[in-house]
Amino acid sequence: MSHATESEKQPVILTGDRTTGPLHLGHYIGSLRSRVQLQHEAQQFLLLADAQAMTDNVGRHQKVTENVIEVALDYLAVGIDPAKSTIFIQSQVPELAELSQYLLNLVTVARLERNPTIKAEIVLRGFERDIPAGFLTYPVSQAADITAFKATRVPVGDDQLPMIEQTNELVRRFNNTVDKQVLVECEAVLSHVARLPGVDGKAKMSKSLGNAITLGASPDEITKAVNNMYTDPNHLRVNDPGQVEGNVVFAFLDAFEPDVPMVDELKAHYRRGGLGDSVVKRTLNERLQSMLAPIRERRREFATDRAEVLNVLRRGTMRAREVAGATVSEVKGALGLNYFQN
Amino acid sequence: MSHATESEKQPVILTGDRTTGPLHLGHYIGSLRSRVQLQHEAQQFLLLADAQAMTDNVGRHQKVTENVIEVALDYLAVGIDPAKSTIFIQSQVPELAELSQYLLNLVTVARLERNPTIKAEIVLRGFERDIPAGFLTYPVSQAADITAFKATRVPVGDDQLPMIEQTNELVRRFNNTVDKQVLVECEAVLSHVARLPGVDGKAKMSKSLGNAITLGASPDEITKAVNNMYTDPNHLRVNDPGQVEGNVVFAFLDAFEPDVPMVDELKAHYRRGGLGDSVVKRTLNERLQSMLAPIRERRREFATDRAEVLNVLRRGTMRAREVAGATVSEVKGALGLNYFQN
Repeated sequence: MSHATESEKQPVILTGDRTTGPLHLGHYIGSLRSRVQLQHEAQQFLLLADAQAMTDNVGRHQKVTENVIEVALDYLAVGIDPAKSTIFIQSQVPELAELSQYLLNLVTVARLERNPTIKAEIVLRGFERDIPAGFLTYPVSQAADITAFKATRVPVGDDQLPMIEQTNELVRRFNNTVDKQVLVECEAVLSHVARLPGVDGKAKMSKSLGNAITLGASPDEITKAVNNMYTDPNHLRVNDPGQVEGNVVFAFLDAFEPDVPMVDELKAHYRRGGLGDSVVKRTLNERLQSMLAPIRERRREFATDRAEVLNVLRRGTMRAREVAGATVSEVKGALGLNYFQN
Repeated sequence: MSHATESEKQPVILTGDRTTGPLHLGHYIGSLRSRVQLQHEAQQFLLLADAQAMTDNVGRHQKVTENVIEVALDYLAVGIDPAKSTIFIQSQVPELAELSQYLLNLVTVARLERNPTIKAEIVLRGFERDIPAGFLTYPVSQAADITAFKATRVPVGDDQLPMIEQTNELVRRFNNTVDKQVLVECEAVLSHVARLPGVDGKAKMSKSLGNAITLGASPDEITKAVNNMYTDPNHLRVNDPGQVEGNVVFAFLDAFEPDVPMVDELKAHYRRGGLGDSVVKRTLNERLQSMLAPIRERRREFATDRAEVLNVLRRGTMRAREVAGATVSEVKGALGLNYFQN
């Protein structure tokens, strides 16, 4: 009993990934690494967001479903422990669709269209007037994902803050409507880590842009990616002074090399001239190889027993259904939709 | 086996009512009467649409939930036989919300906004730009209701034809996307009965307009409603010629008096003068009293055993979940969302 009380006081975290491709170093630095730590101090629910990925992948559903297991392998490989974190598949928790349905009545179309994240993504995806309804309403599904687990903390990038605002609006609106504190507001937890650039120097590492190093990358793939990394295009001869800002190799060293004084020294040397790209790249390559080798190895081991990975997901999904189901029961009860329970 | 094959050939009908108030004579003539007949020649699913009623009744959820049992009582009172028709509560079939979620990805916001039924109802309800998202998307939920049961026939008024068109668009779009005939197109079945006017002569009988005679109305209520009926405002003296068109009493006689020659004779007499409103009203009153007395009596009997009514709804809902669940399994299977079934 005291243990249960203790765990109830823990923050509840809801986070996860769209299952559109295997995860890469950008995910590792931006979220996976901290999830491995947070699982010791919070109740962590990790969502494999296949249903959400479907909203803008009509006709590419195979890509979405095939990557569910790939993302799960990435989670396990980096050290997420299914005994501590609940890993589950969104589409297998129908309670989330049910909760969405009731939240949809509490937000206007105009409000959804004003959501800055949605506005930006509509442009990014070239939807313009042909926005799938499921895409416009996915912030409501996200609110359902968060509130179904009564999550109190949601790790996000700053571009996702409007989603959290919208979730909390829905929470207040629902609780006001039923005049009862049923749903729980959440707090955005912003990452303090700078976003990892793509190996080509583009602002964002992304599988679909082809500028990513995946967590399962082979030693050769890592070496090749590092060798192709964008550095300072004006740093033509070794003796020339080089620029560190916007230099992907240094951005990666900042992200992954724990020996900060060594990195600082490399930067100073590079700036004053006399340090070739190849030397810096060799340092980074060694670091990434040693960091990714055990992850790749664990990933490979888990991949040999897909049935066990599915079992992990099955157990996590059952647990998620229990928790989400309890919330949906409360929600429906507050609306009087509990005809058969008296 | 041959019986199952036989019943599979039967048309499948999906229809129902929003649970916002008890049903009235407009429902009786427009749909209930034919449902009692159709249950012998079709698999009939009758939806108590509480979740849909919620989309434009935020804050009035109690009205919606309380009327579920009232509408069920109306169904039973008019002779719908739960052994022949499946009566179920929409909110208790979460599979419908789940199916909606996938169909939502297959329609654009612009297409939903063009739906003429939705456009008209947005004006009617004064939503304008403050359209709840759940209201804009309810044609998708309706499509889920219809397709979850693989309904082949859907009785509608002509104002609902765009809903059927949208449903069939979604069916084709889904089947194309998964390259498999999973969902089934349906056919609109238009009622040949003229719409019953309100007792005040307004175009539509409606509980909320206060111009309805409910199926459970007391003898006094019926008499009072008939006496207050709108007739010909220029028919001041008995000997004056009277007008039959737009005269509510005659509209009701056309709808409910099976003795057509007698009604024709009354009309002719009224037109040439010499027939007072009170005589025609007395004829209608007698007809309605004799028609509604057994319905009211059955309604009263069922109402004394609400637990049994709930049992009827529980059984119907279980059956509906089985059928809808099978369709949702097929839908998710076609999208590859069946990770745990291999």
